[in-house]
This record gives sequence, structure tokens and C-alpha cells, in this order.
Amino acid sequence: MKKNKLFLIPTPIGKRKENLVLPEHTIKTVHNLSCFLVEKPQTTQSFFQWIKHPVPDYQMTMRVLNKKTPDQEIFSFLQLLKDQDVGLMSEAGAPGVADPGAKFVKLAHENDHPVISLVGPSSILLALMASGMNGQRFAFHGYLSLNDSKRVRELSELEQESVQKDQTQIFMETPHRNEILFKILLEKLRPGTRLCIACNLTQTDEFVKTRTVHQWREAEMPDLQKKPALFLIHAG
Amino acid sequence: MKKNKLFLIPTPIGKRKENLVLPEHTIKTVHNLSCFLVEKPQTTQSFFQWIKHPVPDYQMTMRVLNKKTPDQEIFSFLQLLKDQDVGLMSEAGAPGVADPGAKFVKLAHENDHPVISLVGPSSILLALMASGMNGQRFAFHGYLSLNDSKRVRELSELEQESVQKDQTQIFMETPHRNEILFKILLEKLRPGTRLCIACNLTQTDEFVKTRTVHQWREAEMPDLQKKPALFLIHAG
Repeated sequence: MKKNKLFLIPTPIGKRKENLVLPEHTIKTVHNLSCFLVEKPQTTQSFFQWIKHPVPDYQMTMRVLNKKTPDQEIFSFLQLLKDQDVGLMSEAGAPGVADPGAKFVKLAHENDHPVISLVGPSSILLALMASGMNGQRFAFHGYLSLNDSKRVRELSELEQESVQKDQTQIFMETPHRNEILFKILLEKLRPGTRLCIACNLTQTDEFVKTRTVHQWREAEMPDLQKKPALFLIHAG
Repeated sequence: MKKNKLFLIPTPIGKRKENLVLPEHTIKTVHNLSCFLVEKPQTTQSFFQWIKHPVPDYQMTMRVLNKKTPDQEIFSFLQLLKDQDVGLMSEAGAPGVADPGAKFVKLAHENDHPVISLVGPSSILLALMASGMNGQRFAFHGYLSLNDSKRVRELSELEQESVQKDQTQIFMETPHRNEILFKILLEKLRPGTRLCIACNLTQTDEFVKTRTVHQWREAEMPDLQKKPALFLIHAG
């Protein structure tokens, strides 16, 4: 018996009227689906309007899969996949990357459902490309610790690991704390370490800049307030 | 004075007649460029035919940037960027990631040229999404060592690091050595470690499967011969 498929559907990062980030094939695949696991239903509904999804709301099946969804409920979503193809979406960017969707992908594999990734934007990948840092060896660490002294220790470890492994280190922060993190980076990292700020990617005010920490200390502070940003460092 | 831009242009992974992977905006941006740094000119030329690039060959400027290109020559490419917008392309997938293009992106930053990443396929990202492994913490390591005992040591370190950091480990192999690596993985990794094989992504015979090492030992050997593949492990 042919098993139903789980499609992993990337969505735009931020809002733009025109589509700069999704291949036609990704949109067409979504048009053919009517059952979705989504991180945030409101975002998904505006997304469906934006891509002119032909299936009306009341004929859609939509379940929420976010970081608060209990494992047992995630498990119950397998029934949906038994009945039809399912699309998995995160709030922005690639599902299964820096979001809780991977838990369901794991279940799909365990139950022998084919899993198909579709192409679309990922801020982590776009930032890495644009950073000019080593793309042959890199690591994504999600959020750093909120505890000040722990975070300073983490940063020092990441910097050291970057030297030892020639590895680009990628991490993020919640937008309203970006400027605090940026100041800590300038204070605690070595002057020669390269630091890339990638902010509001794919938006009209996209900002990507790599400088040494020393150069950043001399430069004007970029406007990071309340904008989604990624931070990349490479030390050598 | 407004500085010319460096565009980072992802290209399809493998060949398909139809376009499943590039947003219209990425193609349009390439259509507006006539100066390119490319990893392999033949691949780029077929790509231009495929996207129906309107500029004839003899009006294009194309320079090769591969792993053999001397640093001094890469430096000389800055002159091209002084004269016009430039597109950077790797042989397949995202430039600056697992290819030598990042060197020029670094120079572009140092000379204050805006760097713009365009959306397209990246086998690393597509594999990570489809693996169902932790996408909140992951590391890409490129190729493992060719030396047998060194590689076994590396694998054991990656497996241990995966446990300690709850980190997905991603690496690759040259296609004709895939099956050798696969056998080593089954032999050396712990039975409970999850192993994902992501092979020929975006192609008609795409194959992505995550199983524990124990399950892989019992399963039929997948056909990996001469196909580009990524290997992902997660141990817990």
C-alpha cells in the first residue's frame, strides 16, 4: 500500500507583497494539500490568502504544532497522515529547523511515511551564505543562555571552538534583546573575531554586514531593535 | 557613491527538466546580471540555457572561482565588482556553503559592497528538514577524513558531541565512496543512534530515510552508488 506523504513547506520570512522567496512548485504543492500542521494558525491563514489557496477554510484541516503541544497530541497527528497527505509549516522559514516541527517528522519516519522537503527561504542559510564566513564547517546553536555569566561563558566557548575547528558559529536572539546581545558581543569577543549581523533578511530593509569586532566597535551601531536577526562569528 | 552588489545565486541540485527549486525572483535577478563568478563554467552555461538567460555568451563576463583558484586571483575579481553587479554561483546548491565561494564574499564585505543572498535549494538544509532530527542545534562538518582510523575516531567524537549537545551532525562523502561510508557507519555507530540518509534530493529518485543504526543493520541496503548523499546522525 502506498503511504501518504509529509510535505515540509517553507514560508516567507516577514511580509512582502510580492513573492521573492517561493518557487512556483512549492506553492502548487501547497495548493494540492488541505491538511496542515502549523505553528501559528493566523500566520498560516494570511499565507494561504497570499498564495491564493483554492481550498476554502471550512474544508481545511488544521492542527497546531508549537513548542507547547504535548507529545501525546503530536502522536495523535499520525492519524491525519494515515488519511491523507499532510503539510508541515513553521511560522516563518523552513519547518523542522529552529522550530518544534521535527518531532512530527521523526514520527513520520518511524511509521514509514515518505518525507519531502520543499524549497524556500531559511534565514539561517541565507545568513550563512551572505556572511562570507566558512560554509564548509558551521554550527547553529539556537538561542544562547539568558543568564549573563552563563552566556559570556558560552560565547567564549563558541569563539574557542571556532578557532579549533575553523567553524562558523550561528546563533539568534529574541528581537527585543538584539541590542543587548550585540553590546555583549562587542565587549566580550576578541577584537580580531569576525562578527556578522544578518537582520530582516529578504525584507526591503535587509541588512547583512560582516566586520571584525574591532571594526564594529568603531562603527555606527546598526538598528536591530525589534527586528529578527542572526549573529554569526568566526574566529581564527 | 552607491556600491555595486554581490548576488549569491543558488542553482539546482542535479538535473530536472522542470523548475521545482528556484523562485521566479531568483531567475529574474540572474537575467539582469551579465558578470559571474562560477565554480564550473559548463554547468553555468547549461544553467543559463535552462533559465533562458537573455544575454548572449559573448556579452557575458565569466570567471572561475573553484578550490584551485589562487587567493591573488580571487582578490583581482574585486575589480569586476567595482565595475558592475556580480553574481556568484557554485556548481550546485547554495554558494558560500560547502564550496569555495565564501572567500570572495569576505572580500566584498571588506570593501563595503552589499551582499545579497537569493533563495534556492541547499541539500544540507533540505536534508536537515527531512531528517526529523534536532533542527534547533546542528553542525555541518563537510567531508570526514579519508584515513580509516582517523575517520572512525571522528565518528565517535561526533556521536559523543551529539549526545552532549543534543546536536544533529551532518556530513557528506564523494558519491563513489558512499557505500563504504555507509557500511562503516553501521559498523561503528551505537545501535540506538539515529542515522538519516538523504540521497539525490529534489530528483525523481530522491531518497530520505531516518532509522536507528540497529534498524538499518536489519534493513535492505539503499542504492547510494554514485549518487550525491548527505549523512546525518543524532545520538541520545
